[in-house]
Amino acid sequence: MTGPAEPARRPGRARPGGRRSGRRGGDSGTREAILAAARARFGDLGYDRTTIRGIAADAGVDAALVHHFYGSKERLFVAAMRLPVNPLEILDAALAPGARDEDRGLGEHLLRTVLGVWDITEMRATFLGILRSATTSEQAAAMLREFATGTVLNRIAQVAQQAAPDGSGDAEYRAALVASQVLGLALTRYVLELGALKRVSADDLAAAIGPTLDRYLSGDVR
Amino acid sequence: MTGPAEPARRPGRARPGGRRSGRRGGDSGTREAILAAARARFGDLGYDRTTIRGIAADAGVDAALVHHFYGSKERLFVAAMRLPVNPLEILDAALAPGARDEDRGLGEHLLRTVLGVWDITEMRATFLGILRSATTSEQAAAMLREFATGTVLNRIAQVAQQAAPDGSGDAEYRAALVASQVLGLALTRYVLELGALKRVSADDLAAAIGPTLDRYLSGDVR
Repeated sequence: MTGPAEPARRPGRARPGGRRSGRRGGDSGTREAILAAARARFGDLGYDRTTIRGIAADAGVDAALVHHFYGSKERLFVAAMRLPVNPLEILDAALAPGARDEDRGLGEHLLRTVLGVWDITEMRATFLGILRSATTSEQAAAMLREFATGTVLNRIAQVAQQAAPDGSGDAEYRAALVASQVLGLALTRYVLELGALKRVSADDLAAAIGPTLDRYLSGDVR
Repeated sequence: MTGPAEPARRPGRARPGGRRSGRRGGDSGTREAILAAARARFGDLGYDRTTIRGIAADAGVDAALVHHFYGSKERLFVAAMRLPVNPLEILDAALAPGARDEDRGLGEHLLRTVLGVWDITEMRATFLGILRSATTSEQAAAMLREFATGTVLNRIAQVAQQAAPDGSGDAEYRAALVASQVLGLALTRYVLELGALKRVSADDLAAAIGPTLDRYLSGDVR
């Protein structure tokens, strides 16, 4: 990741529980301190209750510097958790105008996107590590739930809201149904490694399962 | 579990790697020895490669006694893993003639059955323990995959074969698709605990997701 040039530091202020902003070993030392503080806060407090201000205080830097380096809490989380990609950026790219072949349904298109990421070994390893944490620790499950809900699931709910405008507020439910099928496919294809799902190409799987996502997004789910 | 009266023992024979069948502290001691041997063998060799004969040898009893106590490898596995219910027996009961309301689809009926089991705390705890093992150990994942494939998934594949008789041999794929949705629902409702899925009743969830299973069992999945 290449960052912008380092900005002038704001004057350090003493904060309750934090340290004064001070000299560190240049950019990379500062970034490392921020990421370490972020990992600790996300782990202790979960995603929702963690603030950039709190992380900055723990790292002994100004919150503006954290914003400057990482831009948003979601991007800071992605960096702190060492995710090889930002799930929200991938989803946004897939939803961009023109990203989808006209002859494919949205569900199939989204599944091809997800499977394209997971079929890369490094991506899959990271994802499986997260899934493992979530099944073994309630704290990790809460962190993953809050991150997913605040980013990817929120974006899918917006899609559902547009696709089924008479959905009378059930967009969050529709997004969660989508998650149940997509994560279940990951579980059975990559963790349990059911032979029948491992043998099939990503394209064929996307074609078979895509209509399920389409129904969850905009069909009858009452 | 109440077993039948203990049968006369067959004469013990020495087996390679096993021990001679000998006296034990009555039924419960013998059963415990069999279950301990079963856990060790299933854990080491997986479900497919484990044989009742091998377990009997390790436990120092005759294979006929293991058959007498547990009837089948699948039932022995259920007992050894301390599963509170036998998934295949539950599935068979759900598929029995007359078990389903005429006005409900098969997918909805199967989901109501599964959710009815999982919504009981003890059942859910056991299931989550298995899921946890499978995500943290490849050996445990293989054991779960082999057991599921040899029992429940095999039964679902038979259902798909009957429902889509022109399926030209893709019944195993259809059953695996069903598993991807059902296990994904468990993951998102009980592990990640997505609010939108936790809030919804089992009946509403079954109605929303049931048509997905119906399509996987007998619809167009090419």
